[in-house]
Amino acid sequence: MITSIVLLDDFLRWLREDAPFGDYTTDILFEDDFETNAYIVAKSRGLLACVEDILNILTNFNIEVKDSKKSGELLNNGDIVARLRGPVKSVLMVERTVLNLLMYLSGVATTTRMFVEAVRKVNPNVKIAATRKIIPGLRYLVKKAVKIGGGDTHRFSLSDAVLIKDNHVRLVGSIRKAVELARRRASFIHKIEVEVSCAEEALEAALAGADVIMLDNVTPREVERCVDLLVEHNLRSRVIVEVSGGITLENVTDYAKAGPDIISTSQITMRPYIVDMSLEVEK
Amino acid sequence: MITSIVLLDDFLRWLREDAPFGDYTTDILFEDDFETNAYIVAKSRGLLACVEDILNILTNFNIEVKDSKKSGELLNNGDIVARLRGPVKSVLMVERTVLNLLMYLSGVATTTRMFVEAVRKVNPNVKIAATRKIIPGLRYLVKKAVKIGGGDTHRFSLSDAVLIKDNHVRLVGSIRKAVELARRRASFIHKIEVEVSCAEEALEAALAGADVIMLDNVTPREVERCVDLLVEHNLRSRVIVEVSGGITLENVTDYAKAGPDIISTSQITMRPYIVDMSLEVEK
Amino acid sequence: MITSIVLLDDFLRWLREDAPFGDYTTDILFEDDFETNAYIVAKSRGLLACVEDILNILTNFNIEVKDSKKSGELLNNGDIVARLRGPVKSVLMVERTVLNLLMYLSGVATTTRMFVEAVRKVNPNVKIAATRKIIPGLRYLVKKAVKIGGGDTHRFSLSDAVLIKDNHVRLVGSIRKAVELARRRASFIHKIEVEVSCAEEALEAALAGADVIMLDNVTPREVERCVDLLVEHNLRSRVIVEVSGGITLENVTDYAKAGPDIISTSQITMRPYIVDMSLEVEK
Amino acid sequence: MITSIVLLDDFLRWLREDAPFGDYTTDILFEDDFETNAYIVAKSRGLLACVEDILNILTNFNIEVKDSKKSGELLNNGDIVARLRGPVKSVLMVERTVLNLLMYLSGVATTTRMFVEAVRKVNPNVKIAATRKIIPGLRYLVKKAVKIGGGDTHRFSLSDAVLIKDNHVRLVGSIRKAVELARRRASFIHKIEVEVSCAEEALEAALAGADVIMLDNVTPREVERCVDLLVEHNLRSRVIVEVSGGITLENVTDYAKAGPDIISTSQITMRPYIVDMSLEVEK
Amino acid sequence: MITSIVLLDDFLRWLREDAPFGDYTTDILFEDDFETNAYIVAKSRGLLACVEDILNILTNFNIEVKDSKKSGELLNNGDIVARLRGPVKSVLMVERTVLNLLMYLSGVATTTRMFVEAVRKVNPNVKIAATRKIIPGLRYLVKKAVKIGGGDTHRFSLSDAVLIKDNHVRLVGSIRKAVELARRRASFIHKIEVEVSCAEEALEAALAGADVIMLDNVTPREVERCVDLLVEHNLRSRVIVEVSGGITLENVTDYAKAGPDIISTSQITMRPYIVDMSLEVEK
Amino acid sequence: MITSIVLLDDFLRWLREDAPFGDYTTDILFEDDFETNAYIVAKSRGLLACVEDILNILTNFNIEVKDSKKSGELLNNGDIVARLRGPVKSVLMVERTVLNLLMYLSGVATTTRMFVEAVRKVNPNVKIAATRKIIPGLRYLVKKAVKIGGGDTHRFSLSDAVLIKDNHVRLVGSIRKAVELARRRASFIHKIEVEVSCAEEALEAALAGADVIMLDNVTPREVERCVDLLVEHNLRSRVIVEVSGGITLENVTDYAKAGPDIISTSQITMRPYIVDMSLEVEK
Repeated sequence: MITSIVLLDDFLRWLREDAPFGDYTTDILFEDDFETNAYIVAKSRGLLACVEDILNILTNFNIEVKDSKKSGELLNNGDIVARLRGPVKSVLMVERTVLNLLMYLSGVATTTRMFVEAVRKVNPNVKIAATRKIIPGLRYLVKKAVKIGGGDTHRFSLSDAVLIKDNHVRLVGSIRKAVELARRRASFIHKIEVEVSCAEEALEAALAGADVIMLDNVTPREVERCVDLLVEHNLRSRVIVEVSGGITLENVTDYAKAGPDIISTSQITMRPYIVDMSLEVEK
Repeated sequence: MITSIVLLDDFLRWLREDAPFGDYTTDILFEDDFETNAYIVAKSRGLLACVEDILNILTNFNIEVKDSKKSGELLNNGDIVARLRGPVKSVLMVERTVLNLLMYLSGVATTTRMFVEAVRKVNPNVKIAATRKIIPGLRYLVKKAVKIGGGDTHRFSLSDAVLIKDNHVRLVGSIRKAVELARRRASFIHKIEVEVSCAEEALEAALAGADVIMLDNVTPREVERCVDLLVEHNLRSRVIVEVSGGITLENVTDYAKAGPDIISTSQITMRPYIVDMSLEVEK
Repeated sequence: MITSIVLLDDFLRWLREDAPFGDYTTDILFEDDFETNAYIVAKSRGLLACVEDILNILTNFNIEVKDSKKSGELLNNGDIVARLRGPVKSVLMVERTVLNLLMYLSGVATTTRMFVEAVRKVNPNVKIAATRKIIPGLRYLVKKAVKIGGGDTHRFSLSDAVLIKDNHVRLVGSIRKAVELARRRASFIHKIEVEVSCAEEALEAALAGADVIMLDNVTPREVERCVDLLVEHNLRSRVIVEVSGGITLENVTDYAKAGPDIISTSQITMRPYIVDMSLEVEK
Repeated sequence: MITSIVLLDDFLRWLREDAPFGDYTTDILFEDDFETNAYIVAKSRGLLACVEDILNILTNFNIEVKDSKKSGELLNNGDIVARLRGPVKSVLMVERTVLNLLMYLSGVATTTRMFVEAVRKVNPNVKIAATRKIIPGLRYLVKKAVKIGGGDTHRFSLSDAVLIKDNHVRLVGSIRKAVELARRRASFIHKIEVEVSCAEEALEAALAGADVIMLDNVTPREVERCVDLLVEHNLRSRVIVEVSGGITLENVTDYAKAGPDIISTSQITMRPYIVDMSLEVEK
Repeated sequence: MITSIVLLDDFLRWLREDAPFGDYTTDILFEDDFETNAYIVAKSRGLLACVEDILNILTNFNIEVKDSKKSGELLNNGDIVARLRGPVKSVLMVERTVLNLLMYLSGVATTTRMFVEAVRKVNPNVKIAATRKIIPGLRYLVKKAVKIGGGDTHRFSLSDAVLIKDNHVRLVGSIRKAVELARRRASFIHKIEVEVSCAEEALEAALAGADVIMLDNVTPREVERCVDLLVEHNLRSRVIVEVSGGITLENVTDYAKAGPDIISTSQITMRPYIVDMSLEVEK
Repeated sequence: MITSIVLLDDFLRWLREDAPFGDYTTDILFEDDFETNAYIVAKSRGLLACVEDILNILTNFNIEVKDSKKSGELLNNGDIVARLRGPVKSVLMVERTVLNLLMYLSGVATTTRMFVEAVRKVNPNVKIAATRKIIPGLRYLVKKAVKIGGGDTHRFSLSDAVLIKDNHVRLVGSIRKAVELARRRASFIHKIEVEVSCAEEALEAALAGADVIMLDNVTPREVERCVDLLVEHNLRSRVIVEVSGGITLENVTDYAKAGPDIISTSQITMRPYIVDMSLEVEK
């Protein structure tokens, strides 16, 4: 997506957070022109993500990056992720920021992949999607990691689709009324999705013209009921069915079997497994 | 720590991330002057954190906050965290950013508390500390959540203490040499900590004048050996012993029993339990 | 859309641009505590836009706003847009920035309205839409002004829909191939639009599964041919037809009569009529 | 003026506006390492402006620029403005931002040139000047485009000269009093200009010591009267006479004949002709 | 000049510099809701400057300001500058930033006043002016402090007047050529100043049309010679004579007696006397 | 400490301050592609500081830096600090910002060195330390300059150590109580310093467990008394003794003889001698 130059802004802000007055330890121990080799090594298994976005930035710190693995590659414990060469003061100053990003983002990709593989076995037509439950500040990278893990990025933000949630419905009065309003006022370029809590509401939304229906916090059985009801009304092919709320690696296959198009979960972004990595300098 | 006005900067950036062109759905469904009541409700148990920092900001959006629980209060499923009143366009625009922050930060506090309670039972003198393994961008709030959970904030950044790690030692040549260099060059106001991998290195560091010793990736048995060796050399009271690396809720009591002063773990910041919350509007 | 607090950032940057070292003239002529009344008055006819977003910010400068007209109201030459009261140093410092914004944005709304009214007479089903040809830096406000003028905001940015343009097709090889790739890789939440140059390409795009077809730089006759071809293949109801390129107030009715769903034009954002306004202080 | 590195800041902000989550279409269609050639081509006649400032920035996106025309060169429909080579993801991500800037800024230069040429025929001593009626956010570039078009940049901001306007006079009490105050309090390095509405006020301002007199919203006949009155009082050579307000390409020659030194107009910045351009990739 | 809202940006950045993770000491000692009274007290004599700009910002931190002295008031050791009331965490967090600003800026005003008073005794027509030798980051406030001290602000920046220095002359070839070029190309609104090193060069500059002449690094005798030469050529009333370079409190009267219009010195901004102040809380 | 890339942000902001609309004089006199050689030359004696941080940034402006002296080198009047080559428009645009930084920061280093050398003669065990009395905005560079001058950087900010000052003690109730609170609540990684006003308070602080004691505004005799009292109670080796308040080059040796560990002074940062430099272009 956006190239590293645009992330530079964020990276500098993150670096100032981790080193408002520099890497004090390294600054007092070494001379400015002391160069070192170093490598980033995986300490656990996982799927590497966003490595290009992050390591490209290092050239701005006079750090040369070599033999970098690519986003999407599988890591085993002990794998070299990339080799670096540059001033020890630069390498150690950026170390923690780089590792924190790579570990978390690769964790997002890895966890996404676990969900994707789980559902693939029972229903290859279901996609795993991210939500907007993401720790603020690095959404672009997190969504990219989801994609690398085989997931669907879903809405990037509140600005790129209409999603009528229970709160909207409560204030507008009814699902039908809210969808009709949205269809009248939304741009032709944006889809209209509606959050519903049962099969009957799903039908109401579909009849009112929703493009996507999100069943929130329902049982797999209710998903099935919804799919059946839509088929019955000849609406199944016209609407996309998303399931969300309380999805875990344990129950995701039950939901997948129920026949939705999309299963979205905050597990992959709010509490992903972390892919452990460390940076080692070489004498 | 820093009051909400300083966080405003961050909050606006996070909000732009979640709504670069506004909350499209809400914007097309409601008039500007449509006011609503709403409340934030806990959907799982946990320890509330940083709620003042985050909710104070909402006054900038014409949102009034009432009946807010305080940071440090325990939440049960169904508890009202706070009541809000303001323009529906403001309330729903900030909803996700506010919830993402509260859920993650309360999760950090909750998970810290779990570690703190675990060790308290076996060794009330041990403190649980955070590391710098934190998702970039919100470190100030995360460290604050750790404190709310009863943990020790440790270094805020690379700039507030000397921490000589294995990479530094490798390049300088020996622990002794590195500590001596640091003692000569560091400001009198900053402590000197050294990462070591066994009891003998700990002794070397202590003899060279380290204020704190961090045993990284060692067994509880090695921690004990280190403590004994320091006692033997009459150095135990002069150095603080920290243990780090691979600490989990499962093994933390074993480490606590071994008699260190500090146990630090990235589990509380990189993969905390999440305290689920949602925002509900009232008609 | 986003409330004024989020625009504050932009407004301060714009103000620094117009007054990097303050309003020098006013600073040397008046005392800090000299208050004045003033009003903004329309000097030409037009449709007022974004007045709330802009005037709300003035409270940050101790300027009280009264009797403000609302976005969407028609202005005649001589109409009072709003009355202000505050320190003369504040009022005159923000004057030009406020007027430049109101004049340009109201111009966008006014010009949009002219196109909307022109097509309404010949084809009430056609919508006028904006493009991304907008002077950088104030897109959120410009899109809002388009909406106020009765237009469709279309994509806010490159991130909120798939729009396969001629450049993409040239590099991928064919319209069909590009659409199929996009359908496989794009999120379910985003629509897929394709730019085409003739009726046959439109058919190819529709058959490949495009949601929206944009006829770029074609004659009204070609639009008709396209509509007919889609009807013939039973695809008219499934795809949205947009016309773009070279649309002016003079020829827009010809295009509207040809039966598309959307007519998009950069005229409303790149070279709108300007609604003249001035600020007058009262003794 | 300021070199491209200083604009980088602005450019990144504009790019985030157009691609908060990247160029979604291009990102899903192409691989990261897919390179392309492209060229920017003029689609209408005009005077090219600020091309160096804008295209220099592209090197930050790994885009190589070749065969670029220079600011100040005339463009004909079909002329190649510049050739680019780089990753397709970079080229298409920056496309719209680059074109929007070049089209608008070249439009400013072109429209300025039209006014300059119009007055040159009737009075070669008159200069065309810009005002501060400029869409906020890119004033530095707009003023530069005015200069490229042969215009006078006038005040860059409120901070670089004293300009006593009708609002100031109204509050101070009289033109004479305002000019005297300004002469006493302003720095020696800044000129003092006064806005007046007739020949008599111009005389009052000149006698009080104004360096520049701006006749605002007067007829060409009044300009003549003013010039005559100043000559009569032996003040013509000591004050610069500027005319402003309601100047168009149609009436500018009438004003030029009346003998002012400067004619300023917002037409060249608020509603310039646009120089159409597009970017075409080459297979 | 610019009101406090525009400075808020700067103040927050300065505060983050002094407290990237908050005021740690105060945070651990006190509760959030612990309020205190405090006062700022002068510890040396001086002229107070910019106190409104700085203290106005404190309302953003819930700090109430009372009994504040005004900019331009004389301070004696022990004088109360202002009384504050607010949360102790806010008061002590902003303390150092506020004091550093007030002490330095009041020092600038005080030192300016000393120069102003020194020259007033020997030549009441001479003005003391600031230069651009100012520690980066707070120029707006520094220039304001100069004005409060009775000085002339001179150019705010490189953008608000033409100042042809020796480096320009060296590259253009001659003073005459440089002035003529500038007169042809500069906007009518900006004055043209030329740096010269002797009376003859001053004459050359004046004859070429310079508005201001700056004698740089010359003796008082040379200033006199220059003034005489200009009188002799009937140019004295048409050009402003500035003297700069090596001016101190000791020699400034010698220069003043030589009859220039302006004496500029970096002493008032680069190494002003500091007005000592402290903040005391009241139990 | 932080490499130049992180300072780029600050430098661009400082440059915008000095040239919001570019270097107007140079822009109108020269063509874009006019290159020049130039050199920075010392006009007074001093210790060069931070030259790498500042000059490294110039490559971003196409300015090549050669033969640069290093931070820590002594300058004599007439010494070439560095040679530059690049577009005259870049070189002269950055000139003043670069010189202002180098002159002030080298001044800080030079003044620090003067204090360091003064105390070395009478007591080689005493260190000179900086305080937080620093003009806001460039603290990182100022602290670095202190280090280059041989000084101790002390706390970088409010966030990197506990320093209990008289205001804290007044509100908590007693020194003992404040120190005990801090010991209980502060992280193990941060030292605890206490400001006291006499020997007895120093003893109270030491007994309560303070790591560092700062005698504020006391006589050299009181410092001696304090040292003696601590020796008497066997605490001298366990606490660091800092003296602060009213220290000047004249009295610093008296304080040094009294036997503290640290003497801190704001003289080196708030009113350092300035090392004069200028930039000269070569034809």
